[in-house]
Amino acid sequence: MSPASKGQQTREHILKQGLQLFNDKGYHGTGLKEILDAAGIPKGSFYHYFESKEHFAVEIINHYRAIEFDRWESYLADHQGDRLSQIRDILEIIIAEYEVQTAKIGCLIANLSGELANSSPYFRKAIQASTEQVLQCIEEDMVISQQQGTVRTDIPPRELALLFWDTWQGAMLRMKVSRSTAPLKNTVTLLLDNLFLSPEGSDTRRDT
Amino acid sequence: MSPASKGQQTREHILKQGLQLFNDKGYHGTGLKEILDAAGIPKGSFYHYFESKEHFAVEIINHYRAIEFDRWESYLADHQGDRLSQIRDILEIIIAEYEVQTAKIGCLIANLSGELANSSPYFRKAIQASTEQVLQCIEEDMVISQQQGTVRTDIPPRELALLFWDTWQGAMLRMKVSRSTAPLKNTVTLLLDNLFLSPEGSDTRRDT
Repeated sequence: MSPASKGQQTREHILKQGLQLFNDKGYHGTGLKEILDAAGIPKGSFYHYFESKEHFAVEIINHYRAIEFDRWESYLADHQGDRLSQIRDILEIIIAEYEVQTAKIGCLIANLSGELANSSPYFRKAIQASTEQVLQCIEEDMVISQQQGTVRTDIPPRELALLFWDTWQGAMLRMKVSRSTAPLKNTVTLLLDNLFLSPEGSDTRRDT
Repeated sequence: MSPASKGQQTREHILKQGLQLFNDKGYHGTGLKEILDAAGIPKGSFYHYFESKEHFAVEIINHYRAIEFDRWESYLADHQGDRLSQIRDILEIIIAEYEVQTAKIGCLIANLSGELANSSPYFRKAIQASTEQVLQCIEEDMVISQQQGTVRTDIPPRELALLFWDTWQGAMLRMKVSRSTAPLKNTVTLLLDNLFLSPEGSDTRRDT
């Protein structure tokens, strides 16, 4: 293994430990020492990879958004069907994963938004930029689904994307608190199998 | 002023300072000393009113839910109109208040859910109970609105309540991050002025 790829592995290992700790105890509740202990690295190694704890948190947000983006893209490339069916299928996989994790994690953006939005403009900008990127993808999915005739066209795609995102975030918070993926399943059923459907496409509506 | 009411005032003063600090820095990010300094009280006084910092946080959640409940009840008692119009009017007042606060606060439940849900079962239960109480009120509002013919009846009132709550929580997080009340306004317009309306009542639909 080249030093570069080993460095990359170590970096990702630290990011993974940080994600878990921030999800469990919040950003402020996680001390640098806990991150070092969990990752099994000395302080100097941490600062070799990350400028500060603040930068580290933003790196985690960006790292996990990039992973999720790659995953969606490769899924969409590999699977047939109209866009709406593809989205429903990916969301079912994601929900099944949360089942295994006993629904403890939730969305990093939702978890950190409440805690960190007032902490610094640096955090706010990072969370906002990350959210905007996801929103643009959902909006594009809605445009495609409207063109494919599955999603209603009387509501602009941006509005549909915002509604889906906000509802999903709220459902993620309830999932985390209730330790159940039921809120996520309800969101998919109510929005993607019902409210979002175009009147013409409503014969494909699943029973709720 | 009687000692009892003075005690009550002090208690509420400490709760208010705690709310502000938790919203700004998160639960874990707020030390007991900061609470004492902000409230201008000695440690003994804090423990006279609250068993622990954990209990204090749950007291804040319950206290502010009680205040919000009283406010909604007195508003509903004092104002005419069908329930859906009343809800829209109250939400407009709430949104206007967030404008003044530069949208920094957000929903305490949303802010703390992400940070604290994994911290202890005690927190989870308190947040869950609080959420359930609010949900039951919204559900009742939906039942009344369906009876009054303003809200669609093809979706059960519980589903409508969950959708509204989840979307509102997600919108509150975006408000906090974007420092704008636009997400809240969009939610009201899209749900209460559009998606929730019964087909018969849709002539009262506002332009979006």
